[in-house]
Amino acid sequence: MRAATYQGPGEITVEDVPKPEVESPEDAVIRVTHTAVCGSDLWFYRGESDREEGSRVGHEPMGIVEEVGDDVTSVEPGDRVLAPFAISCGECEFCRKGLYTSCVKDESWSGENGGGQGEYVKCPHADGTLVRVPDRYADDEDTLESLLPLTDVMGTGHHAAVSAGVGEGDTAVVIGDGAVGLCGVLAAQRLGAERVIAMGHHEERLELAEEFGATDTIAARGDEAIERARELTHGGANHVMECVGAASAMDTAIAIARPGGTVGYVGVPYGVTEEGLDVFTMFSDNITLNGGVAPVRAYAEELMDDVLQGTLDPSPIFTKTVGLDDIDEGYRAMDEREAIKVLVKP
Amino acid sequence: MRAATYQGPGEITVEDVPKPEVESPEDAVIRVTHTAVCGSDLWFYRGESDREEGSRVGHEPMGIVEEVGDDVTSVEPGDRVLAPFAISCGECEFCRKGLYTSCVKDESWSGENGGGQGEYVKCPHADGTLVRVPDRYADDEDTLESLLPLTDVMGTGHHAAVSAGVGEGDTAVVIGDGAVGLCGVLAAQRLGAERVIAMGHHEERLELAEEFGATDTIAARGDEAIERARELTHGGANHVMECVGAASAMDTAIAIARPGGTVGYVGVPYGVTEEGLDVFTMFSDNITLNGGVAPVRAYAEELMDDVLQGTLDPSPIFTKTVGLDDIDEGYRAMDEREAIKVLVKP
Repeated sequence: MRAATYQGPGEITVEDVPKPEVESPEDAVIRVTHTAVCGSDLWFYRGESDREEGSRVGHEPMGIVEEVGDDVTSVEPGDRVLAPFAISCGECEFCRKGLYTSCVKDESWSGENGGGQGEYVKCPHADGTLVRVPDRYADDEDTLESLLPLTDVMGTGHHAAVSAGVGEGDTAVVIGDGAVGLCGVLAAQRLGAERVIAMGHHEERLELAEEFGATDTIAARGDEAIERARELTHGGANHVMECVGAASAMDTAIAIARPGGTVGYVGVPYGVTEEGLDVFTMFSDNITLNGGVAPVRAYAEELMDDVLQGTLDPSPIFTKTVGLDDIDEGYRAMDEREAIKVLVKP
Repeated sequence: MRAATYQGPGEITVEDVPKPEVESPEDAVIRVTHTAVCGSDLWFYRGESDREEGSRVGHEPMGIVEEVGDDVTSVEPGDRVLAPFAISCGECEFCRKGLYTSCVKDESWSGENGGGQGEYVKCPHADGTLVRVPDRYADDEDTLESLLPLTDVMGTGHHAAVSAGVGEGDTAVVIGDGAVGLCGVLAAQRLGAERVIAMGHHEERLELAEEFGATDTIAARGDEAIERARELTHGGANHVMECVGAASAMDTAIAIARPGGTVGYVGVPYGVTEEGLDVFTMFSDNITLNGGVAPVRAYAEELMDDVLQGTLDPSPIFTKTVGLDDIDEGYRAMDEREAIKVLVKP
């Protein structure tokens, strides 16, 4: 089969690799019909994180179940499924309490599972991981493209909103106008926020934020952005969603939070250890820091319900679509910020 | 009147200073009968934080109201009162939601209010700040000594427990065997924790922790302490109370937290900015960081109820009592860890 592989910074090639097969009775093999390039894929693409050369990449697969192991009961061949970026057994303490990203099995899509950007993937712990799309919607292309973000960014934006404690009538500030930030705007308005203030650097992405429900936008950086957000919230927001994953964005989030408020963060906090976190402001203002890597499996059903009912549609974040053979062009477009998020159809 | 003043690192002297007087209609002047030396007083005593030479010190006063301004309605001359370390108006947004430490008036005991370690203090915003001790208990020395910690350390230990989300049947780890940590043990068991694991370095303080309700103690540092705590909690605690206020203690707290758990912290996080916080572990394990400077005014009534009923008694933390003229000896004893906390009777 064909699969995208990492060959070093800036270099993604599509190679012939062994097709994964069912090995354990809990496995399922999926023919991937839709997948995506993730902002987090850019870390190794840019050489900012280490990755083994030749390794298969991707972690947001959707497709058709081709084969299942003997113990798999929740899906069968022919079913349309999507899979969260984190594999989960569904049975351990952490899966049972909804913290699927802390599953004790600690499996990932990479390695011999085949990556998520290829023709097939093997899903270990299929019953604990896969989300079945109801048959009625299983071949509706528009619906599938709206569901695909549930594998990662929509669940992650939702986790930011949940972690920030966003609820009915609240005012939330969303930092970041990437795919996660935009999904965060959708999530905040979906949870009933009265005001959603989107902060970013790209006019056209902030326009999409407005389409997604942002009531205000701030196109500024650093102190100017902080000042504007504090002005709009009359002194700081009780709910701040950090959807960038950078030390500067975390500092901005803390500076924008109202005393007693909560920062919900979902981006890997690159640079924070080096530069330090403004713990003194957090301390004196009793600001809570909540969140982490999003257990998107926990949110899949409720978000899918809304997508299927037509009340939630994150698909506009896919501003470019490529075939598997052109996936390098997808990486390039995201790296150069030409595309918000790239849909890949193997 | 006589009042303790800071004269430079290691030097506290008692000087004749002007007695404070009611100036605003919201003021009260209190004759101080009981006060204390705080662990946070040691920062300037040790030269670790800046403080103006000649400034009056202290922030945990209890005493008898001597005079009140025209607008004060909650207390009158002759009343026994205690005052939290933070002055609060009781009327602003933050006071109304219980976050008294973020009061917009931003007043403190130092300066012309007279400090808390002297014969008299002036309390601005008396109605929003002072806690009246019921007459029946107003002259009972044992009760007063049990109530005095509500001005700071008992409320702070309670804030750590509340911030860490400690509830009935929980297991909590309390890091720190100083006055705040010991009060944290009392608070955790009071909130219904089934297991309270106290961690510290001093055998006799850990014995007091056991008297206060600790079910287990860990007398170790660094990796050994972390390993032992993870062992006792079968992989990490859902509720960790950081009652030290140091980068190393914060790191220990994060390392001990179970995935999805909460660290409640109440100590000024000295050193954290320089050394950085382990945000990566927090991120991958979805560990919440909650807490900050304790709004002890919010907790005064409920804690006082328990003290007056005899079900809560933090007074054993006072292992030394001095008169005002010997307060320098109190500072020395706390600095050298001879005393857990020093009671001062002006």
